[in-house]
Amino acid sequence: MSNDILIENGLLIPMTQGRPVIENSSVLISNGIIQDAGRAEIFSRYDVKTCIDAKGKIIMPGLVNCHTHLPMSMFRGFADDLPLDVWLNEHIFPAEAKQVNPETVEKWAYHSCTEMLLSGTTTCCDGYFYEENVVKAVAASGIRAVAGQGIIDFPAPGVPDPLQNINIAVDFVKRTKDRYANIYPSIFCHSAYTCSARTLIKAKSAASDLGVMFQIHAAETENEKNMVKEAGKSSIIEYLELTGVLDENTLLVHGVWIDDDDIELIKKAGAKVAHCPESNMKLASGIAPVTSLIERKVAVGLGTDGCASNNDHDLFGEMDTAAKLHKIALMDPCAMDAGTVLEMATIKGAEAIGLGSVTGSIEKGKKADIILVDTDKPHMNPMYNPFSALVYSAKASDVSLVMVGGRILVQNGKLL
Amino acid sequence: MSNDILIENGLLIPMTQGRPVIENSSVLISNGIIQDAGRAEIFSRYDVKTCIDAKGKIIMPGLVNCHTHLPMSMFRGFADDLPLDVWLNEHIFPAEAKQVNPETVEKWAYHSCTEMLLSGTTTCCDGYFYEENVVKAVAASGIRAVAGQGIIDFPAPGVPDPLQNINIAVDFVKRTKDRYANIYPSIFCHSAYTCSARTLIKAKSAASDLGVMFQIHAAETENEKNMVKEAGKSSIIEYLELTGVLDENTLLVHGVWIDDDDIELIKKAGAKVAHCPESNMKLASGIAPVTSLIERKVAVGLGTDGCASNNDHDLFGEMDTAAKLHKIALMDPCAMDAGTVLEMATIKGAEAIGLGSVTGSIEKGKKADIILVDTDKPHMNPMYNPFSALVYSAKASDVSLVMVGGRILVQNGKLL
Repeated sequence: MSNDILIENGLLIPMTQGRPVIENSSVLISNGIIQDAGRAEIFSRYDVKTCIDAKGKIIMPGLVNCHTHLPMSMFRGFADDLPLDVWLNEHIFPAEAKQVNPETVEKWAYHSCTEMLLSGTTTCCDGYFYEENVVKAVAASGIRAVAGQGIIDFPAPGVPDPLQNINIAVDFVKRTKDRYANIYPSIFCHSAYTCSARTLIKAKSAASDLGVMFQIHAAETENEKNMVKEAGKSSIIEYLELTGVLDENTLLVHGVWIDDDDIELIKKAGAKVAHCPESNMKLASGIAPVTSLIERKVAVGLGTDGCASNNDHDLFGEMDTAAKLHKIALMDPCAMDAGTVLEMATIKGAEAIGLGSVTGSIEKGKKADIILVDTDKPHMNPMYNPFSALVYSAKASDVSLVMVGGRILVQNGKLL
Repeated sequence: MSNDILIENGLLIPMTQGRPVIENSSVLISNGIIQDAGRAEIFSRYDVKTCIDAKGKIIMPGLVNCHTHLPMSMFRGFADDLPLDVWLNEHIFPAEAKQVNPETVEKWAYHSCTEMLLSGTTTCCDGYFYEENVVKAVAASGIRAVAGQGIIDFPAPGVPDPLQNINIAVDFVKRTKDRYANIYPSIFCHSAYTCSARTLIKAKSAASDLGVMFQIHAAETENEKNMVKEAGKSSIIEYLELTGVLDENTLLVHGVWIDDDDIELIKKAGAKVAHCPESNMKLASGIAPVTSLIERKVAVGLGTDGCASNNDHDLFGEMDTAAKLHKIALMDPCAMDAGTVLEMATIKGAEAIGLGSVTGSIEKGKKADIILVDTDKPHMNPMYNPFSALVYSAKASDVSLVMVGGRILVQNGKLL
């Protein structure tokens, strides 16, 4: 038991059923796994190698970022406040063609991992090209990640021949699976409007055979909805259901332009949703009906999206925005309460990306993906309600310690 | 010239006409006043008492928070995610009746000032009761403030007899005026639905006689609009125009439920607007037509509102939200570009609260209200466009130095 860590005397918000808040609590960790958590007095320091004082701090699960394109931090602020087509076709696509290569992918993916760790994120769900290089960066950083190799029916970085896109993704998954403790390979079809039905069917089938998550951008913009309709199809979600893509191992990213029938299909299939409010706002895509999805018990996680459309990986900011966006969208100040938002950013996010039994809450048997949040700054006081404090007041900079699988990666707000 | 300060070698964003961005720049300050700003090579260190190295940092004007209720930080997170009437009538009003007294007002106003300074705000525009105690806290903190004594036609903290509300406000202004270098007294009528026409007329007339800003919450909720309509009146703005309240020394707070005719009235009168996007979102009040106001050249500043409805005083977060909110509201990714938002939070905010010649930009003759923003953290890199970086990526915690009138109040991110 030489790897034991005891986090002591903090305000524990484990994000377990019933949303308990337990004062003066401790968490015991062995070999990177949470052994127990609860009132400090039940724990003995006997035989514990490392004690971490959490007095005056919140002990909570690390945040889960359900949608990233990690290497795209290289395009942070590169082209903002532009129409979507100009942004994509005149700026992002040409820049990607020029600048994206294995070296830049690895460099900027690592950069994004450091940004996420410093702001309290311990798990992300990524999709890009040269994903093998993303994986190298993720492994070097120590963060936990679902890593999806991108599939698109056009020549793409590292995939000059689209006919090879599925083979390349399958090879990526095979080479990556079970090779890294914290990395879960995945297949990411870009979208229904950039992948043929044949591609979607083959890619999903490969993902199922390999037992990995299937990710896809779905119903992000109104245009996309019209594209499918113009092709004689019904809604994007119905189209995905017809192609057999919808099941409990599929993560639908965005889900903005969906109606009640679509939500019913998503729920029936057990598919998951990644909600990216800041990206959807900044690109003026629309507002996803997230409260309806949650009402129907669909697992919805929170994502920042890539840095070209946000422009950061800060889930504390994203939580604040999510809580406020749905209130104004529904003209209901009770909508999207702080506790629900915090669930999206932790346990529901973990469930959404297929890691519900691994991370997202502090409970026995789960990986010790834990953060400590300082409560001493003026903006965190007074603290009547820790959920409100974390969602509406806390800043990324309040995160003082971050551990992934029991390994401390950030201490005193600095990367180790 | 013994008070000279030279800020050296930073990226200067003075927020002057044309939005220049000048690399490798310096700012010279004497007796709290900006003497000159521009390319570093034109400045000599000869005879300068203090040199501040701004290498790798942005030099910009301190942010201007156009709407606060400073003592209300005592109610931060006290009652969130509730319907507006329950929030106000069952929680905030009873809590105010119980907890608000001169001591708590001074204590929590000071607390709010520290929060603002630490997050790069050098000027605020406040309104509350016991405003004399707010002023003491403001003076102790060193921040610049317009301080408005509240007027409401009901018994209020420190004003048990509403018949005395105007006298008390007038006395406050007289006692405070010209007594503090950085404090500008003001009169704050709560709203058109809590102050009679007679009160509004008398209060505005007193403010005009005293030569101070007149503040009023206006058109915050749809209800408010209906209240005036039910009373046989036209719009709130038309009502305020009829009572003679609208002129260039009036700050309309919120301005959510206004139409084109209202905007025309505001523009004609030269009245100003404080936009509080996060408060309006959190309380589900609505979305102010800010882009239309700005198109018509109305001076619109940015405000956080009180901590009970936001829940912080972080203008960096507020800028990010403002930029994204109007994009999604108008379904236009070009709306509310980063430069426009930064103007709202600096020079336009200063103009909105009557301090356009005092603060809000870095130019010769203005008070040295200046902040330095670190650019070395992962979330600030790369930096293609400093306006984007400041609005979409920068955090309050990136502020490393804050000075008000040449007095350094925050250094290395810590309050002095």
